[in-house]
Amino acid sequence: MTQTIDSGKPNIGFIGLGRMGSGMAKNILRSGYPLHVWNRSIQKCDELARLGARVAPTPRKLAEECQVIISMLATPAATEEVILGLGDWKGIGVADGLSQGKTVVDMSTNLPSVATKLADQVRAAQGDFVDAPVMGSVVPASQGTLTILAGGRRETVEELRPLLETMGKKIWYIGDNGSGCSMKLTMNLHLNLMVGGFAESLAFGAKAGLDPALIIEIWNNSILKTYITDTKGKKVLERDWSPAFALELAFKDIHLASEVAREVSAPIPLGAVVKQLYSATVANGGKDLDFCALVTTYEQLGNLKISKPRTNEPGTPPT
Amino acid sequence: MTQTIDSGKPNIGFIGLGRMGSGMAKNILRSGYPLHVWNRSIQKCDELARLGARVAPTPRKLAEECQVIISMLATPAATEEVILGLGDWKGIGVADGLSQGKTVVDMSTNLPSVATKLADQVRAAQGDFVDAPVMGSVVPASQGTLTILAGGRRETVEELRPLLETMGKKIWYIGDNGSGCSMKLTMNLHLNLMVGGFAESLAFGAKAGLDPALIIEIWNNSILKTYITDTKGKKVLERDWSPAFALELAFKDIHLASEVAREVSAPIPLGAVVKQLYSATVANGGKDLDFCALVTTYEQLGNLKISKPRTNEPGTPPT
Amino acid sequence: MTQTIDSGKPNIGFIGLGRMGSGMAKNILRSGYPLHVWNRSIQKCDELARLGARVAPTPRKLAEECQVIISMLATPAATEEVILGLGDWKGIGVADGLSQGKTVVDMSTNLPSVATKLADQVRAAQGDFVDAPVMGSVVPASQGTLTILAGGRRETVEELRPLLETMGKKIWYIGDNGSGCSMKLTMNLHLNLMVGGFAESLAFGAKAGLDPALIIEIWNNSILKTYITDTKGKKVLERDWSPAFALELAFKDIHLASEVAREVSAPIPLGAVVKQLYSATVANGGKDLDFCALVTTYEQLGNLKISKPRTNEPGTPPT
Amino acid sequence: MTQTIDSGKPNIGFIGLGRMGSGMAKNILRSGYPLHVWNRSIQKCDELARLGARVAPTPRKLAEECQVIISMLATPAATEEVILGLGDWKGIGVADGLSQGKTVVDMSTNLPSVATKLADQVRAAQGDFVDAPVMGSVVPASQGTLTILAGGRRETVEELRPLLETMGKKIWYIGDNGSGCSMKLTMNLHLNLMVGGFAESLAFGAKAGLDPALIIEIWNNSILKTYITDTKGKKVLERDWSPAFALELAFKDIHLASEVAREVSAPIPLGAVVKQLYSATVANGGKDLDFCALVTTYEQLGNLKISKPRTNEPGTPPT
Repeated sequence: MTQTIDSGKPNIGFIGLGRMGSGMAKNILRSGYPLHVWNRSIQKCDELARLGARVAPTPRKLAEECQVIISMLATPAATEEVILGLGDWKGIGVADGLSQGKTVVDMSTNLPSVATKLADQVRAAQGDFVDAPVMGSVVPASQGTLTILAGGRRETVEELRPLLETMGKKIWYIGDNGSGCSMKLTMNLHLNLMVGGFAESLAFGAKAGLDPALIIEIWNNSILKTYITDTKGKKVLERDWSPAFALELAFKDIHLASEVAREVSAPIPLGAVVKQLYSATVANGGKDLDFCALVTTYEQLGNLKISKPRTNEPGTPPT
Repeated sequence: MTQTIDSGKPNIGFIGLGRMGSGMAKNILRSGYPLHVWNRSIQKCDELARLGARVAPTPRKLAEECQVIISMLATPAATEEVILGLGDWKGIGVADGLSQGKTVVDMSTNLPSVATKLADQVRAAQGDFVDAPVMGSVVPASQGTLTILAGGRRETVEELRPLLETMGKKIWYIGDNGSGCSMKLTMNLHLNLMVGGFAESLAFGAKAGLDPALIIEIWNNSILKTYITDTKGKKVLERDWSPAFALELAFKDIHLASEVAREVSAPIPLGAVVKQLYSATVANGGKDLDFCALVTTYEQLGNLKISKPRTNEPGTPPT
Repeated sequence: MTQTIDSGKPNIGFIGLGRMGSGMAKNILRSGYPLHVWNRSIQKCDELARLGARVAPTPRKLAEECQVIISMLATPAATEEVILGLGDWKGIGVADGLSQGKTVVDMSTNLPSVATKLADQVRAAQGDFVDAPVMGSVVPASQGTLTILAGGRRETVEELRPLLETMGKKIWYIGDNGSGCSMKLTMNLHLNLMVGGFAESLAFGAKAGLDPALIIEIWNNSILKTYITDTKGKKVLERDWSPAFALELAFKDIHLASEVAREVSAPIPLGAVVKQLYSATVANGGKDLDFCALVTTYEQLGNLKISKPRTNEPGTPPT
Repeated sequence: MTQTIDSGKPNIGFIGLGRMGSGMAKNILRSGYPLHVWNRSIQKCDELARLGARVAPTPRKLAEECQVIISMLATPAATEEVILGLGDWKGIGVADGLSQGKTVVDMSTNLPSVATKLADQVRAAQGDFVDAPVMGSVVPASQGTLTILAGGRRETVEELRPLLETMGKKIWYIGDNGSGCSMKLTMNLHLNLMVGGFAESLAFGAKAGLDPALIIEIWNNSILKTYITDTKGKKVLERDWSPAFALELAFKDIHLASEVAREVSAPIPLGAVVKQLYSATVANGGKDLDFCALVTTYEQLGNLKISKPRTNEPGTPPT
């Protein structure tokens, strides 16, 4: 392939062209890497093909053509099937096309125990394996500003650094295989607990008779200012539940964290309660809303409604 | 009193010279207000007397001499007794010395229902009342950089603003009497939930095999950076439990929040669980430690220990 | 007083003629004790007066006339005021009428710390004190089949046994003053956790698609049969929320237990969560319903409705 | 096979001869059914072989010989593999030996979603499927007094009733496939919440200064008496943690319930907290103890120890 010769850059394969994956793949292509793509629904490859990517007929063919194979899939089960060649991909999975010198990089949010298993089986097929889940959602994915948390052999991660930097602005080496996933779930647990704390104390203050807009204004002018008070405070006051990060995904992530917690015996009582509150939001129709719609479950529990005050008389700002 | 004439500033009375109150009173004095002080243990008045404050023999005398009477006491019960003249202060309380034009400003952390009751009884004694609890601990108190959350008549709060600005850099008018207390407890609930989320996810990550120092480093370089990850992360890694804010006080504040939650029927499941975890830390000897020692209860639950790694090989920082 | 001479039985005073107290007082009278009664709203004394009780004008007068003074009041605050002669009862409280040989028996549900304080002050007034809260609600109170949990001097409790047996069928000596209250709150905590477990697992099963009536039928034919599954199962299926024990009272009792838990540093995470769920039921209008209406909060959280199946086709009962 | 002709009873296959399965299989044999057995570790078949059972070389052979094939395995994964012929059992699973008229009865504790999947695939292999998990542990299994919760076609369950009655004294028909599993998990959730309530209120009372033996004695003489207070109260006082039902298994069951809760969006906040407390007990070395060793986690949280009082002075029993 001429492109490869010209650029001196290795062929990269990308599997999983959802909203996140699509943005990430484009950034790889833009940086001059010859790119091969594969997606279960082949139409999703069209845009990248127009931009110059080659579409592989199977994960196996993609693995045969490329030096680095990246996966970005929705669930641990889908990732296992496509990489290991199970189920519908029997004989045509990524592992079926591996050989010495190739590396599989799974960037999905996955269980550390699944990452370890994938690493073992990919190594048995003579490849190398890195788990490299990301922090950040659709916008940072399209802008190449994700944070990437990489687990695997340190040398391999260093070799991949230029490639990873096309997708992320911060590339952290965490440790052995699985540790990237563990760090991702640790960060997500923390983020979900921050949303829980935000929603609960906002509802508490409102039920105690305070103006929600003033609560958020004071938080954002105090040591309590966080990414959540800043970005979600305004959304909640406007009752704008359009998803920057869907509640269903937050629920899935805290579920994965609770799976790890169970496996390693790490009690997470607050996470367990937040998980139930997400479950209540889902039960009441909120799965596709932004995860700050957790607030609506507090509204239901406390029989109250949080919104901007009708008048435009704000609290007195600091002088 | 010459001082009053010279400065043209009103006499201020200050009741409660603990670590916080002492710093606040000095800032009032430094700003040129004639200051009268009273404290149950009279020796605590010595330092302020040397600096020029007059020591009142009783809360009543102090109220008779001053236009504004500030209280900064440890518990709702102590505040009620001294202001209303109950128990040991029968006949010699603040209310016994009030008259038209005087204002009582309670800056203690108090229940909104107690603030409302104090306001009613102070008004019955012809005085005005403002509840004005503060955010910030000993250092901001001594530097005059507290955040002050004021509830009461808006005109009264505006008149007090120059005085309050000697103690705080941000003065927020919240609403009617009691609302200052409600806002304070809302902020404290949020802060305690942030500490809970921090401790739980840190312990989770460590139990899953991650280096705690790396977890905190990544948090502090991500959207998860908060006041807590920044100031408490280092303390936890050093196992430095010296109290910037004692766990016992955090436990008391979340208890007050849960009292309000009960009164107004605002369910706070996460706060309720954090309260139990503080209770466990107290049961195991941690009441005088910094409130981030909540981490030690997670260590006990998960049978793990969080500390800086023995080697000085850090994670790979972002490039 | 002739009655005393005739019966050879001591004069008994009874304070607090609510639904519970009224039934208890009648049982004392029926057993032949000369009875003096007092109630804040004097009309509530009418029925007992018709039955032969003498109505005292003040708690003090009642204490002067009687050897044993029983109180059965709604809140710790009311009990303190009437017994110690505070507030409206200054100079005319029970303590003002005590003398050597008299005993105050507080049968209200109270905090152990309040019971200890009452005991100290009653002893300072030369009386003796027993805290003797009861298990059981209106029906057992009227039938004299309460369970009584007595704390105080063992000899005093033994002397009171014949009197207590007019009200209860089981009289337990627990230990020193305050221990009766502690045992009462321990039992109530357990009862409330049983209701929580019942409501949560019933809602879980129903949401998983099972017939609620079948769930309860199987529970009642298994080791899971409890007082709650037996008495509340049917009520829930009929959506009969008429109060045998009002949710508001259960909420109050678990609040008192959580106060004790805080005082003694006993973490009660499950109790803390149940308390929040009661709070949600109250917020949504359920305070006067039976405490099994906790189920309705689970219905709200899970967006489901529990009721008897429309058809009369039950599960297959065991053969 | 002579035995079959003599008895007129169908050949029964039994897979999974653990402590539970072994007792159940013996009861089938004792009732005169010709029994074929298979177990991964073949030595576990020895005892049943001596009693007259035939040992099948593979699950497939067992299925070919028998009309009803019962499985009693430790995990959902093991059950799927052996029945569907996955992994090591490829081509030699139960499904590989099925034909018209045969029924697979899975008596393991399983997820309803797995039961439904097994039912679909067994039906695709022309067999019928019943999920029939059991309540009761080793002793009832050996005595044939289990409670059996059956999901599947009603006619099939009725046909199986004589066979099931050799193992259980109560056979409940619940509903369609999966409903047996749902009912089992509902019952287990309730049981685990009962243990949680028991442990928490016992620890609360003890920390408040009460004698644990007296608490349990009073519970067992009141409406609070349950299977747990009765059977576990004595064990806890004796600190006898020998497993009647291992904590690890209770932890697994509540995990399965929480999986279902997530799938169907049924919030279970109390179950979620109990799960974390089990996790803490496991983290601190308690996985092989009886599940009432949950008490030890409360001891740790509250820094207390529950045991029989050193003296033999009991509380005063009711007269």
